[in-house]
Amino acid sequence: MKYVYRFSEGNANMRELLGGKGANLAEMTGLGLPVPEGFTITTEACTRYYDDGRELAPDILEEIMANVSQLEAQTGKKFGDPAAPLLVSVRSGARVSMPGMMDTILNLGINDQVAEALAEQSGNPRWAYDNYRRFIQMYGDVVMELSHDRFEEMLAGVREKAGVKLDSELSAENLKELVGLYKDYYEESLGQKFPQEPREQLVNAVKAVFRSWDNDRANAYRRMYSIPYSWGTAVNVQRMAFGNMGNDSGTGVAFTRDPATGEAKLYGEFLINAQGEDVVAGIRTPESIDKLAEIMPDVYEKFADVAHRLEQHYKDMQDMEFTIERGQLFMLQTRNGKRSAQAAMKIAVDMVEEGLCTKEEALMKIEPQQLDALLHPSFDPEALKAATPVAKGLPASPGAACGAVYFTAKKAIDQGKIGPVLLVRNETSAEDVEGMNAAEGILTAHGGRTSHAAVVARQIGSCCVAGCGDLRIFENEHYLRIGGTIVREGEFMSIDGSTGNVYIGKVPTIPAKMAGQFATVMGWADEIRRLGVRANADTPSDAKTALDYGAEGIGLCRTEHMFFDPDRIFIMRQMIVAQDEERRRQALDKLLPMQRGDFEGLFRVMTGKPVTIRLLDPPLHEFLPTEDPELKVLSEQMDIPFEELKSIVRALHEVNPMMGLRGCRLPILYPEIAQMQTQAIIEAAINVTKETGVTVEAEIMVPLVSSKGEIAYMRKLIKETADPIIAASGVELPYKIGTMIEIPRAAMSADRIAEEAEFFSFGTNDLTQMSFGLSRDDAGRFLPVYLNKKILEHDPFERIDEMGTGRLVEEGVRLGHQTRPDMHMGICGEHGGEPNSIDFFHRVGLDYVSCSPYRVPIARLAAAQAMIKNG
Amino acid sequence: MKYVYRFSEGNANMRELLGGKGANLAEMTGLGLPVPEGFTITTEACTRYYDDGRELAPDILEEIMANVSQLEAQTGKKFGDPAAPLLVSVRSGARVSMPGMMDTILNLGINDQVAEALAEQSGNPRWAYDNYRRFIQMYGDVVMELSHDRFEEMLAGVREKAGVKLDSELSAENLKELVGLYKDYYEESLGQKFPQEPREQLVNAVKAVFRSWDNDRANAYRRMYSIPYSWGTAVNVQRMAFGNMGNDSGTGVAFTRDPATGEAKLYGEFLINAQGEDVVAGIRTPESIDKLAEIMPDVYEKFADVAHRLEQHYKDMQDMEFTIERGQLFMLQTRNGKRSAQAAMKIAVDMVEEGLCTKEEALMKIEPQQLDALLHPSFDPEALKAATPVAKGLPASPGAACGAVYFTAKKAIDQGKIGPVLLVRNETSAEDVEGMNAAEGILTAHGGRTSHAAVVARQIGSCCVAGCGDLRIFENEHYLRIGGTIVREGEFMSIDGSTGNVYIGKVPTIPAKMAGQFATVMGWADEIRRLGVRANADTPSDAKTALDYGAEGIGLCRTEHMFFDPDRIFIMRQMIVAQDEERRRQALDKLLPMQRGDFEGLFRVMTGKPVTIRLLDPPLHEFLPTEDPELKVLSEQMDIPFEELKSIVRALHEVNPMMGLRGCRLPILYPEIAQMQTQAIIEAAINVTKETGVTVEAEIMVPLVSSKGEIAYMRKLIKETADPIIAASGVELPYKIGTMIEIPRAAMSADRIAEEAEFFSFGTNDLTQMSFGLSRDDAGRFLPVYLNKKILEHDPFERIDEMGTGRLVEEGVRLGHQTRPDMHMGICGEHGGEPNSIDFFHRVGLDYVSCSPYRVPIARLAAAQAMIKNG
Repeated sequence: MKYVYRFSEGNANMRELLGGKGANLAEMTGLGLPVPEGFTITTEACTRYYDDGRELAPDILEEIMANVSQLEAQTGKKFGDPAAPLLVSVRSGARVSMPGMMDTILNLGINDQVAEALAEQSGNPRWAYDNYRRFIQMYGDVVMELSHDRFEEMLAGVREKAGVKLDSELSAENLKELVGLYKDYYEESLGQKFPQEPREQLVNAVKAVFRSWDNDRANAYRRMYSIPYSWGTAVNVQRMAFGNMGNDSGTGVAFTRDPATGEAKLYGEFLINAQGEDVVAGIRTPESIDKLAEIMPDVYEKFADVAHRLEQHYKDMQDMEFTIERGQLFMLQTRNGKRSAQAAMKIAVDMVEEGLCTKEEALMKIEPQQLDALLHPSFDPEALKAATPVAKGLPASPGAACGAVYFTAKKAIDQGKIGPVLLVRNETSAEDVEGMNAAEGILTAHGGRTSHAAVVARQIGSCCVAGCGDLRIFENEHYLRIGGTIVREGEFMSIDGSTGNVYIGKVPTIPAKMAGQFATVMGWADEIRRLGVRANADTPSDAKTALDYGAEGIGLCRTEHMFFDPDRIFIMRQMIVAQDEERRRQALDKLLPMQRGDFEGLFRVMTGKPVTIRLLDPPLHEFLPTEDPELKVLSEQMDIPFEELKSIVRALHEVNPMMGLRGCRLPILYPEIAQMQTQAIIEAAINVTKETGVTVEAEIMVPLVSSKGEIAYMRKLIKETADPIIAASGVELPYKIGTMIEIPRAAMSADRIAEEAEFFSFGTNDLTQMSFGLSRDDAGRFLPVYLNKKILEHDPFERIDEMGTGRLVEEGVRLGHQTRPDMHMGICGEHGGEPNSIDFFHRVGLDYVSCSPYRVPIARLAAAQAMIKNG
Repeated sequence: MKYVYRFSEGNANMRELLGGKGANLAEMTGLGLPVPEGFTITTEACTRYYDDGRELAPDILEEIMANVSQLEAQTGKKFGDPAAPLLVSVRSGARVSMPGMMDTILNLGINDQVAEALAEQSGNPRWAYDNYRRFIQMYGDVVMELSHDRFEEMLAGVREKAGVKLDSELSAENLKELVGLYKDYYEESLGQKFPQEPREQLVNAVKAVFRSWDNDRANAYRRMYSIPYSWGTAVNVQRMAFGNMGNDSGTGVAFTRDPATGEAKLYGEFLINAQGEDVVAGIRTPESIDKLAEIMPDVYEKFADVAHRLEQHYKDMQDMEFTIERGQLFMLQTRNGKRSAQAAMKIAVDMVEEGLCTKEEALMKIEPQQLDALLHPSFDPEALKAATPVAKGLPASPGAACGAVYFTAKKAIDQGKIGPVLLVRNETSAEDVEGMNAAEGILTAHGGRTSHAAVVARQIGSCCVAGCGDLRIFENEHYLRIGGTIVREGEFMSIDGSTGNVYIGKVPTIPAKMAGQFATVMGWADEIRRLGVRANADTPSDAKTALDYGAEGIGLCRTEHMFFDPDRIFIMRQMIVAQDEERRRQALDKLLPMQRGDFEGLFRVMTGKPVTIRLLDPPLHEFLPTEDPELKVLSEQMDIPFEELKSIVRALHEVNPMMGLRGCRLPILYPEIAQMQTQAIIEAAINVTKETGVTVEAEIMVPLVSSKGEIAYMRKLIKETADPIIAASGVELPYKIGTMIEIPRAAMSADRIAEEAEFFSFGTNDLTQMSFGLSRDDAGRFLPVYLNKKILEHDPFERIDEMGTGRLVEEGVRLGHQTRPDMHMGICGEHGGEPNSIDFFHRVGLDYVSCSPYRVPIARLAAAQAMIKNG
């Protein structure tokens, strides 16, 4: 096993082993660009470090030392040699960039003797002691975990004493004094002298970088970006190039194109006489890269040439770090640059036009999740600079919103007619949907990213911050408390659903704008992708949005939401509390024309595109009130004695409602419910077909099927209702009967279920719950701990769990096709809009994904990327 | 497709196609025994009948008619021919015997003209009209669904008018008159004359038999005995042999051995001058078969010879029907006879001793479920004759019990010291276990066969009737009401856990007795079986019972039951409501010595046999009271303000507790719980190993694992606790860490989980719940409907669902062995004691089953049968 590679031994394809930074340093070395010599300690060494109980094994140490010797030979310098001392940087570099998450140490190799020698040889004692004090500070902070603040205090003290404002104004003497103070602090705190032996410094620095892979901010970053903990980081050891050797030196960062707009010109900034950390520290204001052309035209020209070569070589916009040492350019890093959504679109289209890359290559450069920014309003960046968040919740549905806060759906509806409104609640339920529709955004105190509020907000394209723990609502007293501040009903707040930030007062928003390149990019995606993209939509307005965003059909219409309309909920409740079939049928008869109208609306909007309608799914008690006062009102309205009504409601109570009487179990007990819904669907389809002359493509979907017996029963029930109506209408109306696959047993017996089902739609929300035995409503107490303790790499409700739930999907697909080779199969869980999951669904051979309307563009792009990646 | 077979075309192996009766009639025909000629309409014709919407297709009709013609040719008689009329019986015959469940019609072919001719030709007009009136009655009842009671009334009227008591005393004239009355009733009721055309009679009779496959009692029987609805029944059409032609005629049934005791001698009864139905009707008391030897020695000798030949041929005890027509013997049926548990043992052992069959063949003759009768007390059969059940519940745990009723566990304990007690409750919970132990039996108003009461009763071998819907308990008023009768606390009731019958008053019981042959049979089973048999046992006394019944280890010790002891529940509650780790550890420190004592007790009893201990599994709120009064008491005991305690309890509430914070999720949040349990297990194992000199074989089992990450975490936690204790003890103590496979995802990712788990135990209770998405606590509302509507063939909680849950088990076994080829795997769900399920577990390659102690003998036998059947 080889754990260390010289830059000249690697290349850009060795990213997994060398990390991104290491692989690109090697690649640039291979291209003959000016890269200081060095070597990379691999990610496998990091894994080994953790396997060995956070120790560096002797064989790895030996290999590092051999490479140090080689580096000494290459550079003609030696660790600790006053005549020609070798100084190196030690920097982390994971497979994917995690900027600022892990640690860096510069100037390693310096000690008392070397500092003195450098001062003499360079004739620049200020530079020599600046290097030394910087090294002690970084080593103390990063390796020995001393207080960063204490170092800064000492530095400030010396500045004050010297009467200067900037570090760069300190004299060599000042810095020498500071080195003394630093070393004293080090010795006092740790009971040992500051290490003078460069090899000892190096070994500890490497371990510190490995250790930083497991620090809190790195772990948080990985969770946010779904980066596996198991990858580990590499460490790069590189001869120092000094940007702090005077006014002919400097350091900077630049992009080959503007990362905000995508404009094709060098964009970046630099500092004269500085090391990299000074740019980050932000004490001195850097100059624009254009200025370099004025100050050092030769260096600028050389850099612009390097930048161009790198972009041509990598066929992507580059984000580079460079240092100028006494007029000589050194490249310290290059990587594909992060960019705004708008820039991503422009760069992709420009690069194809420039002939720099193919459409496929261009599509792969766009991060699908970024499209959110193009589809939802965002805060005015200028206004945002002045705003400070008062609290943070979960970023549950993207976009930004600003409005007067109200605590009930009813008030949100009323006030929403007057001005912008934020609906603020502990959690939302199906009864709040109308109020959510009326609001600019939704803020909840409880619930996660798959809570009702989050799911509905994504569906309707509203912005949502969920589970904001610092929020306390005093509904009856008409105020809320957040971060110690009181906000009264009607006062303004602002929320950012993409970050989870919550602000008091107005932060102005700017509307979503789809750049001109959006349509071009989506057009390419549609040409390339194999997966179909449908939308989950319950209303004609949802459906309209979905169509606008390019949906090819409706993959899931949830009929239960239709019954919460104030006109209907009462009749629905009458149906539920009916104690015999006759009274149940009476209520259903009243609901029939309403449902028919719902479906007519949907079918009209979708003109001939497939519409998958799921029969009633939730347990009936979800439609009933639970609290005594509401029950009392209902008992009067219904003319049922209170106690009787209460006992009916109590009888509907379940210990585990998620696994109780719901889905197809309802119509198996009460067939008349499914009969009414079937009649409404079929009559609506006939009416709209007659009206428009375009045949409606209705697909009736049965939820919660676990056995062939259930779908056989339901198929018979549906056909016996539908076929006579169609025959009597004289309209030729093909329709399909299919099933959700959302129960593990359904996936495991999909061969038998396929004998009765004409299509499958994988309901990965419930399938995740059942396959993990994990109640989404209750997982909030332990799922975060699972992610923290790395027991799970990802939240399985966000990203499909390929190893478990995904295997059930695969098995369902395989067995279903065994029985019905041409069966149409899709997925309609929340995962249908998540790019990694879409890639998986492409690979297992599904025909389409269905997601909320606002995620349709993301799904189209992700589906194209899946095709490009996997074929 | 051939739908009809002459008896001479079939044989005993064609049971699936011809039904049991048809196959055996064919076999007897082939053996040259005296069987009246006939043919069988196959079970496939029955399936086709249902597929065709309850119609007989023309091709089937044609085939039947062709066979009628052949039968006419064979017998020299013709349907409706006065000169030589053909009369037939039409009888159902499914693959397995369903006695009395479906319909039979005798004397078919008779009409006005034939009756007259038969009267003349036989010189026995009484016989002729007796046949006719019987036929009209059976045809009217079975085929046309006329009132059976009306026919009986008319018959009684004629008897009265004639002044006689028995039907056999009626004259030809009386019977002729009765025929007239019957035909009038028929015509009045149906608006059509009684059919005179034999072929019309036949077609309607065949359809009626097919239809009877779907009648209520047949459906109920099938559910009880797990017979698939899809099998259908065959129909046998056979020339009549007449037992009612005078005193040289008769009909009877007999067994080749005594079905009650197993004694090897002919056992049976017969009636002179009668048809089969008279024996069943029970108006005349039949004679013992011994009497036949006196009355008709030749016939007896011939019959004894046939009986002997049949037993030798089938190598099993035979249950035969025969008819004697004018001194001539005809065999109408033979089948393997049902027998008591005791007889089953004796016959099996005798037959092997007689050289009639091998041990393997003998074992296959014993129904494993029957062993229950040998292991549990039963009612005195004499006393039972006089007792009438007042209500019926679910037979939840076998045996019979009689005792004074008490409604709380505490009273059951107190009164149980004085005399026999029945514990009667709405349902039981873990707090009632001690009371259940003290009672002779348990009767509950709610809950099914997998309710807490049922599971615990089977575990402790107590008798239990569950879910007795007619029972109302007025606990505070100290009485119960059942079937309109009041029973006060302390008064006696009796329950039969094998039938579900409930009696008021004392019905004396007789203790279980294992016949001498029991040990022999079990010895053979142990020689043959491959599957190991362990027991689920939580206490030393359970473990002792399990050992007595031949358990080879403990497959599941549930540690949660140990905490309900009154001494401990308070400390347990302190642990649960502790708001920090320190106070939690304080409570756990108090529990540690108690747990260690529990395990020492178990290990001592099991001396060196493997003991699998499952770490704490249920959600913590199960240990807490929920009602305010109890919470108030607790708040005082714990010195925690009531409101605070209530809010702690409320915070533990879950929407779907089955899928919430339980199993390994508990120690992942609170590692100290598992640390305490591990310490207790390991210290107990060390102590008992030292004490006895026999190394304890402890297996620590982690519940509710769904991912490799969880078992890896738990393995580390357990090893870090256990290994230092073992090292310090100086004892060589190997122990294993394994996992339950009870979550679908665990089965689907068993390859990865096996990297960390040393053994698997499939928890098929939870696996069934999760794979079906079916909450056992809530399924009561719809599972019975599923069984009634035939959507499911079996209750998946009783018998493993091979098509779904079973496939997950298979996948878990396959993937687990892929990683660890020699991995030890068992099952510890309720299915571990169910013979069909045991057969499945054998086939998928598990190493052992674990079941409640009282089912161990059943499992040993079923495991041997699985080996014999599948190899």
